[in-house]
Amino acid sequence: RETVCIFGTGDFGRALGHKMMQSGYPVVFGSRSTQTSSLIPKGAEVFSHAEAAQKAAIIIIAIQRQHYNFLIPLAEILRGKVLVDVSNNLKINQYPESNAEYLAQLVPGAKVVKAFNTVSAWALQSGTLDASRKVFVCGDDMEAKQMVMAIVHALGLTPVDQGSLLAAQEIENYPLQLFPMWKFPVLLSLGLTAFFFFYCLARDVIYPYVYENKDFSFFIAISIPNRICPILALILLALVYLPGVIAAIIQLYRGTKYRRFPDWLDKWMLCRKQLGLVALAFASLHVLYTLLIPIRFFVRWRISSRIVSQALNNKTEPLNTTNAWLSDSYLALGTLGFFLFVLLGITSLPSVSNNVNWREFRFVQSKLGYLTLILCTAHTLVYGGNRFLSPSSYRWYLPNAYMFSLIVPCIVLVVKFVLIFPCLDKPLTRIRQGWE
Amino acid sequence: RETVCIFGTGDFGRALGHKMMQSGYPVVFGSRSTQTSSLIPKGAEVFSHAEAAQKAAIIIIAIQRQHYNFLIPLAEILRGKVLVDVSNNLKINQYPESNAEYLAQLVPGAKVVKAFNTVSAWALQSGTLDASRKVFVCGDDMEAKQMVMAIVHALGLTPVDQGSLLAAQEIENYPLQLFPMWKFPVLLSLGLTAFFFFYCLARDVIYPYVYENKDFSFFIAISIPNRICPILALILLALVYLPGVIAAIIQLYRGTKYRRFPDWLDKWMLCRKQLGLVALAFASLHVLYTLLIPIRFFVRWRISSRIVSQALNNKTEPLNTTNAWLSDSYLALGTLGFFLFVLLGITSLPSVSNNVNWREFRFVQSKLGYLTLILCTAHTLVYGGNRFLSPSSYRWYLPNAYMFSLIVPCIVLVVKFVLIFPCLDKPLTRIRQGWE
Amino acid sequence: RETVCIFGTGDFGRALGHKMMQSGYPVVFGSRSTQTSSLIPKGAEVFSHAEAAQKAAIIIIAIQRQHYNFLIPLAEILRGKVLVDVSNNLKINQYPESNAEYLAQLVPGAKVVKAFNTVSAWALQSGTLDASRKVFVCGDDMEAKQMVMAIVHALGLTPVDQGSLLAAQEIENYPLQLFPMWKFPVLLSLGLTAFFFFYCLARDVIYPYVYENKDFSFFIAISIPNRICPILALILLALVYLPGVIAAIIQLYRGTKYRRFPDWLDKWMLCRKQLGLVALAFASLHVLYTLLIPIRFFVRWRISSRIVSQALNNKTEPLNTTNAWLSDSYLALGTLGFFLFVLLGITSLPSVSNNVNWREFRFVQSKLGYLTLILCTAHTLVYGGNRFLSPSSYRWYLPNAYMFSLIVPCIVLVVKFVLIFPCLDKPLTRIRQGWE
Ligand SMILES: Cc1cc2nc3c(=O)[nH]c(=O)nc-3n(C[C@H](O)[C@H](O)[C@H](O)COP(=O)(O)OP(=O)(O)OC[C@H]3O[C@@H](n4cnc5c(N)ncnc54)[C@H](O)[C@@H]3O)c2cc1C
Ligand SMILES: Cc1cc2nc3c(=O)[nH]c(=O)nc-3n(C[C@H](O)[C@H](O)[C@H](O)COP(=O)(O)OP(=O)(O)OC[C@H]3O[C@@H](n4cnc5c(N)ncnc54)[C@H](O)[C@@H]3O)c2cc1C
Ligand SMILES: Cc1cc2nc3c(=O)[nH]c(=O)nc-3n(C[C@H](O)[C@H](O)[C@H](O)COP(=O)(O)OP(=O)(O)OC[C@H]3O[C@@H](n4cnc5c(N)ncnc54)[C@H](O)[C@@H]3O)c2cc1C
Ligand SMILES: NC(=O)c1ccc[n+]([C@@H]2O[C@H](COP(=O)([O-])OP(=O)(O)OC[C@H]3O[C@@H](n4cnc5c(N)ncnc54)[C@H](OP(=O)(O)O)[C@@H]3O)[C@@H](O)[C@H]2O)c1
Ligand SMILES: NC(=O)c1ccc[n+]([C@@H]2O[C@H](COP(=O)([O-])OP(=O)(O)OC[C@H]3O[C@@H](n4cnc5c(N)ncnc54)[C@H](OP(=O)(O)O)[C@@H]3O)[C@@H](O)[C@H]2O)c1
Ligand SMILES: NC(=O)c1ccc[n+]([C@@H]2O[C@H](COP(=O)([O-])OP(=O)(O)OC[C@H]3O[C@@H](n4cnc5c(N)ncnc54)[C@H](OP(=O)(O)O)[C@@H]3O)[C@@H](O)[C@H]2O)c1
Ligand SMILES: CCCCCCCCCCCCCCCC(=O)OC[C@H](COP(=O)(O)O)OC(=O)CCCCCCCCCCCCCCC
Ligand SMILES: CCCCCCCCCCCCCCCC(=O)OC[C@H](COP(=O)(O)O)OC(=O)CCCCCCCCCCCCCCC
Ligand SMILES: CCCCCCCCCCCCCCCC(=O)OC[C@H](COP(=O)(O)O)OC(=O)CCCCCCCCCCCCCCC
Ligand code: HEM
Ligand code: HEM
Ligand code: HEM
Repeated sequence: RETVCIFGTGDFGRALGHKMMQSGYPVVFGSRSTQTSSLIPKGAEVFSHAEAAQKAAIIIIAIQRQHYNFLIPLAEILRGKVLVDVSNNLKINQYPESNAEYLAQLVPGAKVVKAFNTVSAWALQSGTLDASRKVFVCGDDMEAKQMVMAIVHALGLTPVDQGSLLAAQEIENYPLQLFPMWKFPVLLSLGLTAFFFFYCLARDVIYPYVYENKDFSFFIAISIPNRICPILALILLALVYLPGVIAAIIQLYRGTKYRRFPDWLDKWMLCRKQLGLVALAFASLHVLYTLLIPIRFFVRWRISSRIVSQALNNKTEPLNTTNAWLSDSYLALGTLGFFLFVLLGITSLPSVSNNVNWREFRFVQSKLGYLTLILCTAHTLVYGGNRFLSPSSYRWYLPNAYMFSLIVPCIVLVVKFVLIFPCLDKPLTRIRQGWE
Repeated sequence: RETVCIFGTGDFGRALGHKMMQSGYPVVFGSRSTQTSSLIPKGAEVFSHAEAAQKAAIIIIAIQRQHYNFLIPLAEILRGKVLVDVSNNLKINQYPESNAEYLAQLVPGAKVVKAFNTVSAWALQSGTLDASRKVFVCGDDMEAKQMVMAIVHALGLTPVDQGSLLAAQEIENYPLQLFPMWKFPVLLSLGLTAFFFFYCLARDVIYPYVYENKDFSFFIAISIPNRICPILALILLALVYLPGVIAAIIQLYRGTKYRRFPDWLDKWMLCRKQLGLVALAFASLHVLYTLLIPIRFFVRWRISSRIVSQALNNKTEPLNTTNAWLSDSYLALGTLGFFLFVLLGITSLPSVSNNVNWREFRFVQSKLGYLTLILCTAHTLVYGGNRFLSPSSYRWYLPNAYMFSLIVPCIVLVVKFVLIFPCLDKPLTRIRQGWE
Repeated sequence: RETVCIFGTGDFGRALGHKMMQSGYPVVFGSRSTQTSSLIPKGAEVFSHAEAAQKAAIIIIAIQRQHYNFLIPLAEILRGKVLVDVSNNLKINQYPESNAEYLAQLVPGAKVVKAFNTVSAWALQSGTLDASRKVFVCGDDMEAKQMVMAIVHALGLTPVDQGSLLAAQEIENYPLQLFPMWKFPVLLSLGLTAFFFFYCLARDVIYPYVYENKDFSFFIAISIPNRICPILALILLALVYLPGVIAAIIQLYRGTKYRRFPDWLDKWMLCRKQLGLVALAFASLHVLYTLLIPIRFFVRWRISSRIVSQALNNKTEPLNTTNAWLSDSYLALGTLGFFLFVLLGITSLPSVSNNVNWREFRFVQSKLGYLTLILCTAHTLVYGGNRFLSPSSYRWYLPNAYMFSLIVPCIVLVVKFVLIFPCLDKPLTRIRQGWE
């Protein structure tokens, strides 16, 4: 294999050199000081920049952008060479032009390729490539890009061609991103959490304190979270299926699929997966909190004081079968709903979804997804049951919080139910299949 | 990169064109109407079919099969070109010959390659390639196939070579399949579920209604499912390990491994993974239902009425240590069994199993798997314990349902136990290693 | 595609032949007996070894090492051919030289390549490639290696180039390894488990037996495991974050990152992932055991006898709000901690971690990881709460077991807290970024 030259004996340069030598590439380093330290990978030689550059066709610049101007005097030697820019910035869009474009301006005769900036020195060095193995590559010279991609491949990484050097800005921004697709779902749920927190606080803690002088402040730890979590789970789950319904209405109205959806709908559709997973997280918390109920001190106290008072009043209650039915059926509905919910989560794992075909994925995500929504909504409805009309559940004229959570799911389910009637489903299918 | 031509400006044609332009391929469209709409990806040109075909060596036919005959007049222009058939059907084996073979008959001079039918337009367009990235490719011309596979690769998809155009039928059926490997396990468990449901209904609901006039109909919601689920989990788990035992007996009997197993055994062996995962699903439901027990209305009522009657009778029971031992140990056995069960599930995730070597995978799936089976069987045995002989558990001479669930696991464990005796294990090892 | 020859019609030879023919390679077998049996894949021909070798440039030796000497007479025919060694051994480092090197010595004129030893015959035959798809390839001849890697690729497997034939020993040892990275975490936790088991046995079972003559032996099944598991989970979790803290102190002390860490620290850092997952396993068991509490016979007995005695004494207790607060808040802290713990586990799944960038991975593993540690430590502290000082919790002068579990986490958290003060954080950041 052809020799590769690396400028810079810092962390990244050494780690890359180490990995390359493992994969059979001869490596030479170009450095300011040419004495080899014990950290330099064994078998690699260290030269001055100019010397090292002459020994290879590919030169990897493992140096921060702010030091690039030392390359200007070397421009003649670097003419026609492939320069690989690996640098990252500290902030998104820190400089007006990308580092790779800046390098191309500094050394106009060279073929600049952007690569390797997404892997970390520590991962390369220790062999534990835990975060992404994807290496985005871009550059204007096709052949140079191919050479770099071959190296990426040989190192056991996955090269992804991103086109011309114009893509460098985006590639440099990529490692600085922090879950961009999750921003909207997370912010939305934070907002809703805050709202429902204060709502429940008013109803469940302040109201009894004011009117009954009871101190239920400890509800903040479990009871209130166990109201907020299921409510959010249900609302977010419904928001996953709402855009599909809206899209269907738009398509029916327009009579064609050959027109763009409004922008907000497009964006919403793209973050349905994230919305769904956040909903799953809330649902899991709900389930955990619910299962904790019997070991809470408060609950044990309430049950035992109720039994003691029963015993003292010499009263034995017969079994209320209706209540047994209601309790068992809302619990069973919730359990089945949660089970399917977890199944949806498991099929979103990239390695699982990559092993099913499109029809299977749609079957799980769309069919089973609606079933999940139905079960969860039914769970809440049966739980609410007779409380809807009871005046004691309206404190300060505020209805029980879960009533809010039922609005979106019920809308989605009703509209979806209308949409599967043949008189609407047939034209829709025709529109979507594109038989004009 | 060389220009690619796409016939058809429908959903799929546009989506593919969009993706290709992103990856640096110049794209021309061939369409019935040559005016560019706003939906056509920017930078692509639209021509008549004949004109477009002349501009590229590869032509992708993104048009439904039923319209293919418009290609007949173009046969001359298409001579020597690579035609890529991307089409899908609505039903499995809808036509006698595959679409790709039909295309090859229509345009005899062209080199037909089947590809891309497994990816969806929506996935290509939105970049969220959630379902499979695998693109099956087949074709009679080696070079044409290589060209198409290079494009597939450049698009970030995974080409899988399936050989000659004869494979097209299978490739076209692939996206229409719905979990073929899961059919048997799911049907089997549905059948068993139905059987055990009616069995338990008779014993647990109808019997008390008839003889004691008690209305336990609400058992249908949780109590009966929580009998069916663990029983099915245990039976299915045992069925995972039964074929291995049968295979061993067959091999011992035959004295060689160089003969095919009977067909049913082969098929059974191939769906062990699915059987195991269905068993895991049932076990998870069992665990969830079990953890719900203390918050069920009925259970709370039963406990409190028992305590009240104790208090009224002025009776304090001493701790029965045997019962405490029995209860704690069957719960502990179940917990450990379930823990290992989940571990088996986690190691079946494609990305995890792909990161362990064969010995490790076998260690988990075979050794830990048997341990799981032992623990779960012991759990049920200890739970059943003294109920086996008590006559009250035989209603209408029907034994308790869980007794059925113990048959298969006990057989598997006993036979396996016999098989690991050196006098049988040694010849078996010799047979399997192939030292005749 | 060029013809491939396989020596040996055993399990592996046939399975490989079968797979190759599926991928379009013509296959000839070389065997001691040239009659084709029904097991030989259809379309393949069987010849004598010499004849078969002449028909192909690549020869796969699917025969055990101990029979290799039959190749010596064939040396002339094999000159210049590519010989692929697929063999495995029964023990690590069974022979002084690797099988592939031994083969190269036996047939000096041939180009030996090591490959395919990591896939199993069963997996190839049945198409269920569940364990690793990685095929390590090594060899001294570059071109020969490329040819073999092309075949590996065409078979749908992932070739990984490991360099020269010197790597063969390591490649042959790979399939014999059994979770090498997990050894230290598992042994450590076994040791700690044993210690805490006897410690708790003494305090919780023997002490009451000796002094109060109470038989709590059944605590061995659930109560004691439910002490050991959370304690181990907490200690192991803290041990995940301890090396990072130690590394920071060392770097601060040295004033540079350009010096190796001591060896034990390097090794410790590399098994943090495994430590964390073992901790997660213990935590899951703790949670399951905890949720079981209310259905344990002993707990039910204790609660009901307490209520009965309350009723008999005609006593009603008012709600103790402090206790309600303490109970609810330690449960809530544990729940949130466990939730984040599972999230850490999910992001360690290879397919998930491969889809996040480095910054995101660090955010989850480092930031959320510390949050998990804080929550779990707080959970234990609040649970312990007033028991620290109560003399009744010192039996035989032994403190409660959970007090030990708090030592390491508290050290880690305190040191980390000190390290994020600007006066230490700034120099550390400077050191790590390498701006001397
Ligand atoms: C726990 C959980 C996990 C999830 N994980 C994922 C995940 O991993 N990946 C994921 O994508 N989603 C995921 N989701 C989101 C959700 O399940 C899917 O988006 C689901 O497929 C939506 O189904 P639908 O029937 O509403 O939409 P669809 O039937 O997909 O329809 C959506 C709308 O888009 C339009 N449309 C779709 N295809 C076309 C087309 N070819 N031509 C024209 N218009 C079209 C239609 O107008 C349609 O109405 C997850 C959800 C949850 C709860
Ligand atoms: C939750 C769960 C998840 C599971 N996930 C998976 C999964 O992901 N993948 C999977 O494959 N299974 C999976 N299984 C199924 C099961 O764990 C495995 O099939 C398990 O390896 C069977 O072990 P065994 O010891 O019975 O069979 P084995 O020891 O494999 O033996 C089976 C029989 O096959 C024959 N055989 C096997 N290899 C050879 C050979 N080389 N030559 C000749 N004969 C041979 C032998 O006759 C042997 O008796 C799962 C099970 C569960 C419960
Ligand atoms: C359930 C669970 C799952 C886990 N899964 C994983 C996993 O999948 N993968 C994994 O890796 N870990 C995993 N871990 C372990 C753990 O989360 C990580 O190791 C975590 O990143 C450590 O964070 P830290 O802040 O202590 O260390 P870091 O901030 O990473 O620092 C560690 C030390 O290494 C040194 N260091 C790191 N980078 C450099 C550098 N560039 N130059 C010089 N020195 C450097 C520094 O001295 C630093 O102090 C898991 C843990 C748990 C509990
Ligand atoms: N570390 C990572 O994980 C990582 C990941 C992706 C990308 N990168 C990128 O890789 C590059 C190097 O990062 P690093 O972590 O290796 O940094 P580093 O450890 O600070 O190394 C930088 C090296 O650049 C050289 N250098 C410094 N000042 C110079 C100057 N004025 N003139 C010439 N050479 C100079 C030095 O090498 P000599 O002493 O040999 O001259 C020094 O070792 C950066 O652009 C970074 O964005 C790093
Ligand atoms: N959509 C998917 O997700 C998907 C996935 C895999 C495979 N496919 C396959 O891709 C093909 C196209 O699917 P599609 O979803 O894009 O369908 P579509 O939206 O209906 O587009 C079909 C296109 O074919 C052209 N066409 C229609 N009738 C024609 C005729 N009589 N003569 C010539 N051209 C005609 C039209 O293009 P002009 O108006 O430009 O002529 C039309 O836009 C199908 O074979 C399908 O099986 C689709
Ligand atoms: N089985 C696996 O899963 C697996 C996985 C990876 C690697 N391997 C390796 O593949 C090789 C073969 O394994 P296997 O499982 O196929 O073993 P096998 O079933 O025992 O087959 C060995 C074959 O070697 C030939 N052979 C036996 N003695 C011979 C002799 N004295 N002279 C010449 N040929 C002789 C025989 O073929 P003929 O009767 O046709 O001459 C026999 O079928 C081993 O090195 C093994 O380590 C196997
Ligand atoms: C209420 C808790 C619910 C728990 C649900 C456990 C469900 C297990 C059922 C697995 C379903 C897999 C669907 C596969 C779709 C498919 O065909 O997928 C196909 C793929 C690939 O198949 P091939 O390799 O055969 O092509 O199969 C898989 O990837 C299997 C994935 C297995 C995942 C198991 C995950 C276990 C995690 C357990 C968490 C449990 C938590 C319990 C808490 C109490
Ligand atoms: C009763 C519930 C039991 C929950 C069990 C949680 C177990 C966690 C232990 C992880 C074991 C991993 C085995 C790995 C085999 C291996 O070596 O695997 C090796 C691979 C690859 O390793 P390398 O990258 O180091 O080569 O490692 C992994 O893939 C790690 C997988 C981590 C999986 C964590 C999954 C968390 C899901 C949690 C669900 C929890 C539900 C809880 C409900 C109450
Ligand atoms: C207490 C129990 C806690 C259960 C926690 C469930 C959490 C679900 C939240 C998912 C979080 C995903 C983080 C993704 C990071 C990321 O960006 O990851 C990015 C990747 C890839 O994203 P792109 O494909 O969009 O680029 O996304 C994923 O891989 C999604 C993984 C989903 C995993 C769901 C697993 C479900 C298993 C459920 C077990 C439940 C057990 C319940 C027991 C009671
Ligand atoms: C194992 C599964 C589940 C169980 C055991 C369960 C149990 C319960 C219980 C006991 C309550 C009453 C809580 C209280 O008294 O405060 C409840 C309420 C509720 N549950 Fe569930 N549930 C499950 C799953 C789900 C899921 C998956 C969802 C939705 C996505 C959900 C949505 C709700 C809602 C909205 C409420 C009303 C919240 C309130 O205002 O109190 N549940 N559930
Ligand atoms: C955390 C793990 C588990 C717990 C806590 C648990 C608990 C229980 C309980 C309390 C019962 C009695 C149910 C009743 O009274 O109706 C039971 C029954 C049973 N369990 Fe489990 N179990 C666990 C895991 C498992 C697993 C993994 C299996 C098998 C695969 C299993 C198989 C059975 C069977 C067959 C029965 C008898 C069912 C009947 O007829 O009632 N259990 N379990
Ligand atoms: C859903 C989550 C959790 C719940 C409901 C929970 C609940 C409990 C309960 C009820 C106890 C008292 C046990 C007893 O009385 O014997 C306990 C103790 C403890 N928990 Fe948790 N816990 C959770 C998660 C965790 C996690 C994630 C950790 C640590 C990694 C942890 C560490 C501990 C420790 C160290 C103890 C003291 C053990 C002892 O000596 O008894 N817990 N937890």
